[in-house]
Amino acid sequence: MQALLNEILEEVRPLIGQGKVADYIPALADVPANQLAIAVYSNDGELYCAGDADTAFSVQSISKVFSLVQAIQHSGEDIWQRLGHEPSGQPFNSLVQLELERGRPRNPFINAGALVICDINQSRFAAPVLSMRDFVRRLAGNPEVLVDSRVADSEYQHRARNAAAAYLMQSFGNFHNDVEAVLRSYFSYCALRMSCADLARAFCFLANDGFCKHSGAQILTARQSKQVNAIMATSGLYDEAGNFAYRVGLPGKSGVGGGIVAVVPGRFSVCVWSPELNAAGNSLAGIKALELLSERIGWSVF
Amino acid sequence: MQALLNEILEEVRPLIGQGKVADYIPALADVPANQLAIAVYSNDGELYCAGDADTAFSVQSISKVFSLVQAIQHSGEDIWQRLGHEPSGQPFNSLVQLELERGRPRNPFINAGALVICDINQSRFAAPVLSMRDFVRRLAGNPEVLVDSRVADSEYQHRARNAAAAYLMQSFGNFHNDVEAVLRSYFSYCALRMSCADLARAFCFLANDGFCKHSGAQILTARQSKQVNAIMATSGLYDEAGNFAYRVGLPGKSGVGGGIVAVVPGRFSVCVWSPELNAAGNSLAGIKALELLSERIGWSVF
Amino acid sequence: MQALLNEILEEVRPLIGQGKVADYIPALADVPANQLAIAVYSNDGELYCAGDADTAFSVQSISKVFSLVQAIQHSGEDIWQRLGHEPSGQPFNSLVQLELERGRPRNPFINAGALVICDINQSRFAAPVLSMRDFVRRLAGNPEVLVDSRVADSEYQHRARNAAAAYLMQSFGNFHNDVEAVLRSYFSYCALRMSCADLARAFCFLANDGFCKHSGAQILTARQSKQVNAIMATSGLYDEAGNFAYRVGLPGKSGVGGGIVAVVPGRFSVCVWSPELNAAGNSLAGIKALELLSERIGWSVF
Amino acid sequence: MQALLNEILEEVRPLIGQGKVADYIPALADVPANQLAIAVYSNDGELYCAGDADTAFSVQSISKVFSLVQAIQHSGEDIWQRLGHEPSGQPFNSLVQLELERGRPRNPFINAGALVICDINQSRFAAPVLSMRDFVRRLAGNPEVLVDSRVADSEYQHRARNAAAAYLMQSFGNFHNDVEAVLRSYFSYCALRMSCADLARAFCFLANDGFCKHSGAQILTARQSKQVNAIMATSGLYDEAGNFAYRVGLPGKSGVGGGIVAVVPGRFSVCVWSPELNAAGNSLAGIKALELLSERIGWSVF
Repeated sequence: MQALLNEILEEVRPLIGQGKVADYIPALADVPANQLAIAVYSNDGELYCAGDADTAFSVQSISKVFSLVQAIQHSGEDIWQRLGHEPSGQPFNSLVQLELERGRPRNPFINAGALVICDINQSRFAAPVLSMRDFVRRLAGNPEVLVDSRVADSEYQHRARNAAAAYLMQSFGNFHNDVEAVLRSYFSYCALRMSCADLARAFCFLANDGFCKHSGAQILTARQSKQVNAIMATSGLYDEAGNFAYRVGLPGKSGVGGGIVAVVPGRFSVCVWSPELNAAGNSLAGIKALELLSERIGWSVF
Repeated sequence: MQALLNEILEEVRPLIGQGKVADYIPALADVPANQLAIAVYSNDGELYCAGDADTAFSVQSISKVFSLVQAIQHSGEDIWQRLGHEPSGQPFNSLVQLELERGRPRNPFINAGALVICDINQSRFAAPVLSMRDFVRRLAGNPEVLVDSRVADSEYQHRARNAAAAYLMQSFGNFHNDVEAVLRSYFSYCALRMSCADLARAFCFLANDGFCKHSGAQILTARQSKQVNAIMATSGLYDEAGNFAYRVGLPGKSGVGGGIVAVVPGRFSVCVWSPELNAAGNSLAGIKALELLSERIGWSVF
Repeated sequence: MQALLNEILEEVRPLIGQGKVADYIPALADVPANQLAIAVYSNDGELYCAGDADTAFSVQSISKVFSLVQAIQHSGEDIWQRLGHEPSGQPFNSLVQLELERGRPRNPFINAGALVICDINQSRFAAPVLSMRDFVRRLAGNPEVLVDSRVADSEYQHRARNAAAAYLMQSFGNFHNDVEAVLRSYFSYCALRMSCADLARAFCFLANDGFCKHSGAQILTARQSKQVNAIMATSGLYDEAGNFAYRVGLPGKSGVGGGIVAVVPGRFSVCVWSPELNAAGNSLAGIKALELLSERIGWSVF
Repeated sequence: MQALLNEILEEVRPLIGQGKVADYIPALADVPANQLAIAVYSNDGELYCAGDADTAFSVQSISKVFSLVQAIQHSGEDIWQRLGHEPSGQPFNSLVQLELERGRPRNPFINAGALVICDINQSRFAAPVLSMRDFVRRLAGNPEVLVDSRVADSEYQHRARNAAAAYLMQSFGNFHNDVEAVLRSYFSYCALRMSCADLARAFCFLANDGFCKHSGAQILTARQSKQVNAIMATSGLYDEAGNFAYRVGLPGKSGVGGGIVAVVPGRFSVCVWSPELNAAGNSLAGIKALELLSERIGWSVF
């Protein structure tokens, strides 16, 4: 596995320079584009790393999985009264469908859906951001995972599109807390800084029927764990979910920080990172690396 | 397995009466609603049946998989110049997205996408319907599979919505043959009559890396086979693809005749049938049967 | 008035070369771009002409007013059961709104609405095209008005977008005759060839409370005449109806042949012609000429 | 005229009870439904009143005309860089079109367009609300016109939909001031309390080529005045602009307080008031009263 990971990184490294680092906020635009990493955490507890796998980066939308898992933990199936688990077929931040469907987001991985999940968590936790940070620290087995407040503040300054989505949902009665407060929490989750190694460990329970081996905790039931994977498979990569299933064939979740997490159920979790994005907003080299991994080990879920 | 299938049918039988048989054409509305069947064909060549598994029914949209496989066989990746493989997030027959995306259908399992695939096949085969029928006979190992011309004619009489989609694509230059001729072929494919046993056998190659054990033919490469499964997983059940992934966790394809085919990669293909549909147009008892099967054998792809 | 018309044509003539002749069918693309004409027919029966005012051109969508008037004559208010009289806010040939509003077109001047009007007329007349031609001959006071069958055939060959609209409406039950037959009629109406002088005379009844002075016939009631003008004012110039009201301030109807008819209620009807179109598909020099006319005589309806 | 107004009110009074008073905020829901008024202000300076014509009510969207006129006064044609003057064909508060057209509202009378106009005015005036109030006092010739702060506050509490529109425009760079501050101004304008007599006087300049007879001020140029009327004619009554043109045939602007102002160019301005609204959100008895007025005096602009 170690040799395979090294080989894959060398094979995708030439893609660096062909994508574009997210630049909608300065704090993300600053990230050096030539960083590249992969980490695999197997169900028997081995961690394999290659490249800059210990360098922390901004997880961004990968945090939407953490929020969803927290919400499932405390509210279970009830959350589906507030949003769906169908692919949206629309850009991640579009309001068109949200208005036509009267403020009910299609799934928890488009921005509107993640905001509803944050609103649900906001109602539940006295200190939602601390609560999330501590949850992620336990999942990652790393007590030093931090929220980058510079990134969170900068995203809040550029909140207009997400604010529009939240107010639109509020206008349909599908938002219960103060919009500005939930936006603050939402951007704090997005601003979590974690390495590929952290994320591979943090997602291991989804490859292992909900059980997190390194911490010994059952995070979700086996059934819930499969359900989260199902939602990642149909909706985890924005507009490119179908293409990711077609090329890689694994449940996954990407972030504009350039990270992508994927799950091989029954075997391992994996995280790749390369800051440059393709036109759909997913890590260009990251998708290629996962495609090669899936090919070489002869494994997609399909 | 045999006992399990019997048990599942008994468990879902009470759902009969809670759905609605498709009635947009008389030939479908006539089907007795109390029929129920399941068939499993394993990768080691065993066929397990329960209920009315030898009764032929109208496969309808399940035929979209056959058309797609034929198109991949002769044109490979080239077909993606004409359509995508992303979930649509829209009803199966909507023209809204098709117009906004300038006549390029999202995937081969919405009607517009299947029409483009038929148009591709129409350009390739001198006798497209015979060609398809013979292909399906070989896949099913049943030389008596027929097209029900009464159903095909009746659907042609009610072609307005599909004609609109085809003409709209033609207006964008994404339709190459005579619209009426392709519609005739399309409705003939939909009007194939097959039993659950036929369909379980016909789909076995998708559970077996493209290899059809009973005929000894490699229908698709292993990679292509996974790709077809990926498209079924993200787009196979109309508006309910996400929910099917969430509840059942298997690649599948449904038809308004009440059939649903699903694939457990590496293990078996399965077909269920019950004519009554839910609000999304998928077999009500069929989805429940597959959900139970997935639960009992502890298997979803996730 | 004569001097004013001459002056206006000279003032707008430099615009020739800045627009684009319609080229979606060869028969329209052939028209020499440097033709320019204006004709005014006053309520006291005087005709004033300048430029190529006796040259016949393809009236195209201007015919939608004739169809509407015929339908009002025989069916009155009943036609509004089949379509609306609200601006669409969408391109003239879009199907998005038509699907969302279940096959009911917004108004009689978008293509879908004109097709419904043709369908209504098709049900009423044994020979709809002859009936229309004779009606227009009487309105224009010119027994030599003809349908250009080369243009009609060519448009039929390129019917895809309009066929899609008609089939979509049929799928919602809002189309009663054979689609192909109605399309043939529709394209024949569009292919009427008339001069500016013909059209100014033909529209005079709309400036005169429904009374056609030269033929002595009451074409519509005063109220109906105002209603047709109202629909032209809010929906007569495709996507540019608001801009036309803002700049010219008169009810009007344009065609892609480069003609625009406008009405000054109580005073006169006017037709301008210049084949080159602006981005919205309306005659570039034609709109400018009407703007100057409205300014110079100090008259808009507002 | 006086007799005619009395007669019209008696004729429409039976409609009271068939509509529905706006109830999205308590302050509006409280208004007694049985109030009814009409006022006409002629170009020769006569005021004719009937019913409760001196009772002040909440002008709501009628204020959008005042904002627009202020913006034209100081910025002229420049405002059209920020929004259009085309009918929208969509509900007054829809975000669908706004997103598809990248944050540029269709016209100044849908909410998004009025918010952009307020944003423009906010940049211009140190005290925008006072500035507007004083402008309206001069137009109405009534120094006691007030903003009802209870209504303004209540609307601000229910700002979600308008906040969504403003933030969406900000995300496209088409909003320059603080969203919350502009919303405060916007709701203050809507909360102006004026009577039918006030409003008839305040709109008289639009019937008189921009000249306000009672104050002796030229508010707009004749051309600008016609342009404002043109926009009212194509977009002044929400989704019902086409129907209002068809039935009444006059430029007009309505508000959910139940007022409608209309203009007979060259003759008079008129205001009707009845708090109960039809399904499109326009005063039910108000539209009927204007239809009768237009019929009886034989006058529509068409």
